[in-house]
Amino acid sequence: MADNWLREPNWSWNDSLEPSGYVHDWVQRINEVESVPECILYGAPLSKSSISVSGASLYPEVFRRLWKQFAAYNFEEEIDLTSYSVADAGDILMHTTDVAESHRRIEIAAYALNQTFPKSTLCMIGGDHSTTACAIRGLKRSQPNQTIGILQLDTHLDVRDPAEYGPANGTPIRQLIEGGVVRGEHIVNIGLHGYYNTKQLVEYAKRHQIKTYSMKETRKIGVSRLIEQELKRLSSETDLVYVTVDMDVLDISFAPGVPAATPGGMRTEELFEGLLSIGKSPAVKHIDFVCLDPSRDSRIEETCRIGVHAWLQFMTGRIMNKG
Amino acid sequence: MADNWLREPNWSWNDSLEPSGYVHDWVQRINEVESVPECILYGAPLSKSSISVSGASLYPEVFRRLWKQFAAYNFEEEIDLTSYSVADAGDILMHTTDVAESHRRIEIAAYALNQTFPKSTLCMIGGDHSTTACAIRGLKRSQPNQTIGILQLDTHLDVRDPAEYGPANGTPIRQLIEGGVVRGEHIVNIGLHGYYNTKQLVEYAKRHQIKTYSMKETRKIGVSRLIEQELKRLSSETDLVYVTVDMDVLDISFAPGVPAATPGGMRTEELFEGLLSIGKSPAVKHIDFVCLDPSRDSRIEETCRIGVHAWLQFMTGRIMNKG
Amino acid sequence: MADNWLREPNWSWNDSLEPSGYVHDWVQRINEVESVPECILYGAPLSKSSISVSGASLYPEVFRRLWKQFAAYNFEEEIDLTSYSVADAGDILMHTTDVAESHRRIEIAAYALNQTFPKSTLCMIGGDHSTTACAIRGLKRSQPNQTIGILQLDTHLDVRDPAEYGPANGTPIRQLIEGGVVRGEHIVNIGLHGYYNTKQLVEYAKRHQIKTYSMKETRKIGVSRLIEQELKRLSSETDLVYVTVDMDVLDISFAPGVPAATPGGMRTEELFEGLLSIGKSPAVKHIDFVCLDPSRDSRIEETCRIGVHAWLQFMTGRIMNKG
Amino acid sequence: MADNWLREPNWSWNDSLEPSGYVHDWVQRINEVESVPECILYGAPLSKSSISVSGASLYPEVFRRLWKQFAAYNFEEEIDLTSYSVADAGDILMHTTDVAESHRRIEIAAYALNQTFPKSTLCMIGGDHSTTACAIRGLKRSQPNQTIGILQLDTHLDVRDPAEYGPANGTPIRQLIEGGVVRGEHIVNIGLHGYYNTKQLVEYAKRHQIKTYSMKETRKIGVSRLIEQELKRLSSETDLVYVTVDMDVLDISFAPGVPAATPGGMRTEELFEGLLSIGKSPAVKHIDFVCLDPSRDSRIEETCRIGVHAWLQFMTGRIMNKG
Amino acid sequence: MADNWLREPNWSWNDSLEPSGYVHDWVQRINEVESVPECILYGAPLSKSSISVSGASLYPEVFRRLWKQFAAYNFEEEIDLTSYSVADAGDILMHTTDVAESHRRIEIAAYALNQTFPKSTLCMIGGDHSTTACAIRGLKRSQPNQTIGILQLDTHLDVRDPAEYGPANGTPIRQLIEGGVVRGEHIVNIGLHGYYNTKQLVEYAKRHQIKTYSMKETRKIGVSRLIEQELKRLSSETDLVYVTVDMDVLDISFAPGVPAATPGGMRTEELFEGLLSIGKSPAVKHIDFVCLDPSRDSRIEETCRIGVHAWLQFMTGRIMNKG
Amino acid sequence: MADNWLREPNWSWNDSLEPSGYVHDWVQRINEVESVPECILYGAPLSKSSISVSGASLYPEVFRRLWKQFAAYNFEEEIDLTSYSVADAGDILMHTTDVAESHRRIEIAAYALNQTFPKSTLCMIGGDHSTTACAIRGLKRSQPNQTIGILQLDTHLDVRDPAEYGPANGTPIRQLIEGGVVRGEHIVNIGLHGYYNTKQLVEYAKRHQIKTYSMKETRKIGVSRLIEQELKRLSSETDLVYVTVDMDVLDISFAPGVPAATPGGMRTEELFEGLLSIGKSPAVKHIDFVCLDPSRDSRIEETCRIGVHAWLQFMTGRIMNKG
Repeated sequence: MADNWLREPNWSWNDSLEPSGYVHDWVQRINEVESVPECILYGAPLSKSSISVSGASLYPEVFRRLWKQFAAYNFEEEIDLTSYSVADAGDILMHTTDVAESHRRIEIAAYALNQTFPKSTLCMIGGDHSTTACAIRGLKRSQPNQTIGILQLDTHLDVRDPAEYGPANGTPIRQLIEGGVVRGEHIVNIGLHGYYNTKQLVEYAKRHQIKTYSMKETRKIGVSRLIEQELKRLSSETDLVYVTVDMDVLDISFAPGVPAATPGGMRTEELFEGLLSIGKSPAVKHIDFVCLDPSRDSRIEETCRIGVHAWLQFMTGRIMNKG
Repeated sequence: MADNWLREPNWSWNDSLEPSGYVHDWVQRINEVESVPECILYGAPLSKSSISVSGASLYPEVFRRLWKQFAAYNFEEEIDLTSYSVADAGDILMHTTDVAESHRRIEIAAYALNQTFPKSTLCMIGGDHSTTACAIRGLKRSQPNQTIGILQLDTHLDVRDPAEYGPANGTPIRQLIEGGVVRGEHIVNIGLHGYYNTKQLVEYAKRHQIKTYSMKETRKIGVSRLIEQELKRLSSETDLVYVTVDMDVLDISFAPGVPAATPGGMRTEELFEGLLSIGKSPAVKHIDFVCLDPSRDSRIEETCRIGVHAWLQFMTGRIMNKG
Repeated sequence: MADNWLREPNWSWNDSLEPSGYVHDWVQRINEVESVPECILYGAPLSKSSISVSGASLYPEVFRRLWKQFAAYNFEEEIDLTSYSVADAGDILMHTTDVAESHRRIEIAAYALNQTFPKSTLCMIGGDHSTTACAIRGLKRSQPNQTIGILQLDTHLDVRDPAEYGPANGTPIRQLIEGGVVRGEHIVNIGLHGYYNTKQLVEYAKRHQIKTYSMKETRKIGVSRLIEQELKRLSSETDLVYVTVDMDVLDISFAPGVPAATPGGMRTEELFEGLLSIGKSPAVKHIDFVCLDPSRDSRIEETCRIGVHAWLQFMTGRIMNKG
Repeated sequence: MADNWLREPNWSWNDSLEPSGYVHDWVQRINEVESVPECILYGAPLSKSSISVSGASLYPEVFRRLWKQFAAYNFEEEIDLTSYSVADAGDILMHTTDVAESHRRIEIAAYALNQTFPKSTLCMIGGDHSTTACAIRGLKRSQPNQTIGILQLDTHLDVRDPAEYGPANGTPIRQLIEGGVVRGEHIVNIGLHGYYNTKQLVEYAKRHQIKTYSMKETRKIGVSRLIEQELKRLSSETDLVYVTVDMDVLDISFAPGVPAATPGGMRTEELFEGLLSIGKSPAVKHIDFVCLDPSRDSRIEETCRIGVHAWLQFMTGRIMNKG
Repeated sequence: MADNWLREPNWSWNDSLEPSGYVHDWVQRINEVESVPECILYGAPLSKSSISVSGASLYPEVFRRLWKQFAAYNFEEEIDLTSYSVADAGDILMHTTDVAESHRRIEIAAYALNQTFPKSTLCMIGGDHSTTACAIRGLKRSQPNQTIGILQLDTHLDVRDPAEYGPANGTPIRQLIEGGVVRGEHIVNIGLHGYYNTKQLVEYAKRHQIKTYSMKETRKIGVSRLIEQELKRLSSETDLVYVTVDMDVLDISFAPGVPAATPGGMRTEELFEGLLSIGKSPAVKHIDFVCLDPSRDSRIEETCRIGVHAWLQFMTGRIMNKG
Repeated sequence: MADNWLREPNWSWNDSLEPSGYVHDWVQRINEVESVPECILYGAPLSKSSISVSGASLYPEVFRRLWKQFAAYNFEEEIDLTSYSVADAGDILMHTTDVAESHRRIEIAAYALNQTFPKSTLCMIGGDHSTTACAIRGLKRSQPNQTIGILQLDTHLDVRDPAEYGPANGTPIRQLIEGGVVRGEHIVNIGLHGYYNTKQLVEYAKRHQIKTYSMKETRKIGVSRLIEQELKRLSSETDLVYVTVDMDVLDISFAPGVPAATPGGMRTEELFEGLLSIGKSPAVKHIDFVCLDPSRDSRIEETCRIGVHAWLQFMTGRIMNKG
């Protein structure tokens, strides 16, 4: 008699009684997919590599909890997301105290996913920015003959010296350059601004020909237009582009929940437009979203919601590219 | 001797010792007005009809407390608000557990106020968005021969199925269409964006010819210009326009204090400009402001302050229309 | 190769990689149990019946999320909880706007669970205090010949007049008395204190011979000793005792996350001891925990953690009773 | 038709539709009383005299807002508060920038109230602790021949040097001693503890024979018993006792909303018992409650609620003394 | 052996082990400079003069703590700040209870610093806005023959009547006009908007020919362009311009940590551009930043970070002017 | 002229203008002491070894900032702390990403400090609980012939398996037992309670004869009395006792700012009494305080204040032992 009302406990991945049409109805578990998914999500819940205290390791779980509140339909572009196949490979298990081991596992996971699903777009949910170096190394190992370009949206250059910090979240770009994985001139960083990079680091970037655009320049050109222009250039010089979105590129008034929030940053509107362009680009192969720290977020989980929205913009772009 | 310093306790409506010139000096209690007021405020403190947990029932009281901090003078337009007469009719008493009864009372209140003060602009302070359907039904019953148009500023379509939810805050537009109160083609919704309406609901809206503008389109045209254009159109097709402002139309970074805050929404600056245009329009007869939840607001009561400011913009527009 | 590290996404009820021994390893889904469980949990996520704004409907979900952080072992009593069988029947689906219908479903659920599992202890996770009246009515309907006694831990009498409020959270005890379900002299309320019940309500309680103990008297006797004494008395006068724990019985400094938190209340230590005594008593058949509101809790979810701990104390008592 | 539901806006002192029996129904405005009230409340909203930043000036307003949630009935003592007459004289208007002038007004207000209502108990709602010196000076000026004793509940001695700070919140006791208003040996301070008074200040207190009891000694004797014993002694040596309750005497876990919250302090339960004893004592003539800062309180207004409860305990004691 | 790791406790001004290049490495203590510094910082930690409760007195200390997280390099303009010499003169000691004395000390400090370092730009870190009147009076006394112009960025006119409030934070501009220190027509106020100045105050400003620009007008022209235009005009009519930045000019969504935060204000991006223009102008001699209240800021210290960034923009402008 | 008021910026360790008598006036920098200090403080700012996200690395800095608000005088015991000499050796520099290296440095630091100052009590300020194993190993290496006993105040056994977690904060006791540094029977753990240790870990503790006392047993005996009894026993079986205070032993209502806060824990009053007993005991040689996480603390820094108070209780005990 009470059958319709006694809901099962909230244990299951697609547990909602909402009418269908939400993100959790659409994304599949990787062990349940029947064909090769166009996009594979995987979490890298590591933030012990962060220079300052960070709870970014908590983000992958929050990301999946919040997506239940997002419809699988983009109103502005009139895009039905369910026409694109996405599988969730789950989180990489991190070691509690051995950061190098955790980094190694991320690298191997990226390698293995790319080996198994060479055609799929890999989308890593961080974690702090050190994870990006691991993912790119794994992809490079999987496809050693391919030249990788990087499009980075960030407030920071992330070229601190690993000799001093170890493989910390301030060092991934330098790790990749010095490890011979990516060449400086194949790296574009958009969103730098203000007083958040020392002169010494700026000089390093110049020396290695990293292409940088300040927020001021970026706004003059337009975020999307600049991204399109740079992706075009990178696609002519490299075999594939990896995009890394450090959410601290956003202004502190939009994104309080990142460990290094600063004033003077990007607006969400600009980021969302940029991610459409990124998704649309055939040159872009893989992406990550890093440095969202739920423990620093406001009570309404503002920054983490932006994180889900941002990822959906990339998905929308992918479909527009297909169509 | 101590007469000047011993202030009476803070029990009274116009209790401030501030120099005059503030909103609470200007708005009158409805039982004290001597002529028909140009605008009548009334509160509908109901949010039990909300799909998610909502404290929007607390807003009318906070609205009246905060207005003591607002001058009755618009600096930008050089408008003295006191040249316009506003009366506060107080709050409708809600039933503690019977939502249908509460809805009935709102409907009767709107009916009764319109019957008694047919020339006055009614301004309802919600409460959640279910209250809008009640208010419009009451007005329709009062003036059955008048065709009503709706201008809605909202992140959501609010066309969920009442058969499934009852008369909840996700359903008012569908209630009005299916109840024959307002026709779909007389409804304009501005501010929709992102991933907050399922495909199924978008299709319902299309089927019923609700006119929708995404934030992206809206920004291309300009919020005020679009509102003016649509009000013009509506005024040629209907007898009067009812405006409903769901404050969740605002971006989450401006308005955390709404139950369904999302990224990608309207900026306050845009909303404020739009409300000037709305106030100026002779076609607009009544208005409501819904879904502000003081219990979700930040410690500085940011969203509720925006709510007062928004209402004052509408008032400023009214005067500009008169003058 | 990466098999051990690529964890599946966090979708599953027993999804932890923690070494076994935690609560979520122990509690089973009701459709997976192989024999009649000794205790059945079910959630009643309703708080629209609350006089003040309440998010207590959110508690059942938070309760199940937090229990992953609790070991299934009581250190102080050296009790292994896994020797007791508990099944989770999930949540009752509430109607969005029809409170009476939601109440009816709770009543039917309690009836149906008791019909199906007449030997099991039912443990309802609220929801606000109005749900208690429903559960007890359901049990009474299931076993109409049994006389029910109530042991209530509460700051309030909950005897407001349903004629005025409807079946709100301030009325359950009066509903049960006036509905002839439970007699006033079979009700014991422990924890009343301070200035949180009007004279008129106290007089109602006296008139109906509800037995009340103020916190002051309770402390003089000792919470556990008083509970044991009163359960003994009730067991001699009734067939079974239903215990209802309104978490607002706790002092505001311990339990901020209840809608009506007050100073002068019970300490957690006292509540926990009392729940051991309650669990141990053969007279006690069913229990509920109500009025925990996660949206009012502190950032560290203090009150909800106390809620899980409190329930585990009752479980510990059950086992001590068995053993 | 809608008459019963259209409530007037919330402008009025007795604006609640709650069934009667709450504090705001009982306390009268001073200009409406018909006979001499037994107790007169007045607010001293000054905290610019505080050494650290303080918003204690906001407390009188919050105090009157929160009392609407308190019944005028003490459950534990079965006391109906309405048998005692209380009038609210409102707040003393403070000067915005001239602290000395504000202090002068408080002194004159206390003088004037005592001249007009010599039999009434004056109850001052602070404000910071500097206001106590003013109130006592005003009373002394009104009754110059009466010897005043002080019972102080406080974490601090408040004997810093006014020559260094001016008449700040750390100095009131020293002001009164050095101004010849009260003698050191007629001052008792209960609740001192930990590391919150320098050796130099302790030595000053000893030199002036202020009687001090640490929390540790106090607990050994029992708060109420110690208070009763000391009030007895003071009543034999002075004509009247003024009680000053600095709410920072409470432990930081109970009372976060005071500018100088410390661990190791009094529990609310102890304070509440002590205030019953104080209220019951015929020796006690006047009282104040100071240093509650709503802007530092938790979101649930925990400390301010304790403030209302504490005052009601004093009221309860007054009635027990009468009866 | 452990020498390299055992860091000294964090007691020292340049205590960081970060690689050099941060603000605290660059700013010198005034008693350690070897030549006349181009800019001198001094703190005026006074906010007892504020009409509403304010903790702006806490800002100078937070300002110096946060600057350790800012690089001494402006990325957008490619400016190395260390090419400009800045000395920190510390904070002016405020009197605890005598606001007039505190004001006198600020005035004398500004006088003395200008007498000792007549060529240096003085940069005052408030405190509330009353401190501006003191600083300008001190400078005028030091250089009585120089005509001073004021460029004010503010949401308020600050022309309330000192006869009513004393020298409060709402009065500094009126103090200066009525004290004959600055003439009304030499004052420009940019950023006024909304409903935050009464008609009466606007009329005062008009009567004294204060030049005002609403946010709406300002945006039409462009913040930087308007500032440049007005500085040009002021430089032709006065000998030097004093800039006062009341941080409440910013929109509440950017700057919650000011006592009078309002919607409709300036964006940080606009303020930052404006401060570049201000820094670049040779007409500008001195500056202050007032009304940042760390106790009202969000947990991530958003507003105070904006305060440091804003000051660095002015510094960047200074260097661009030199170069 | 302005000399007295222009305070130097707040850069210095003893920078306060407060009258002397506070903690920061008393504690000396280690490179400034003239004789061997009786106690040496050192910070171990490491929390990357924590199983859950922890910001305990931030505590040493907050500890030193807050002590400026504590007088160097214990009111209850009438003890002047300045009669005891304390030096601050600063913080050990942690590696950003290499936890093992950070652990090695802590071990060496403890070794080196003990070698240099063999008579001094070492007081380590953590950091998470993994640091305790390092400190004790360092001391053991310094004095290999001494048998060490451990008195642990904790909610957890901390005997998880390092083979699984590495040297994490859940493992230090097991590390020490399995490393042969301390024998199980020389370890006493007081404060265990509730559901925070799995059966498996309890069995490990029993197997290794760790002596454990639940909060319930502890309260029956009395915290201080139990501590005295166990220290007496340990002193007869070992050469010296190391005390480790995991602040999560406190109840969640007192100490929200610890990563694993639980209900059912110790009261501050009990901890403070216990630390007096610990300080008084000649058997106790060294101590640490771990697991205070400022980033989880409430806005008023409640838990960190308790941390300073707790340390001062130990200091008071030391002096009582001497005297």
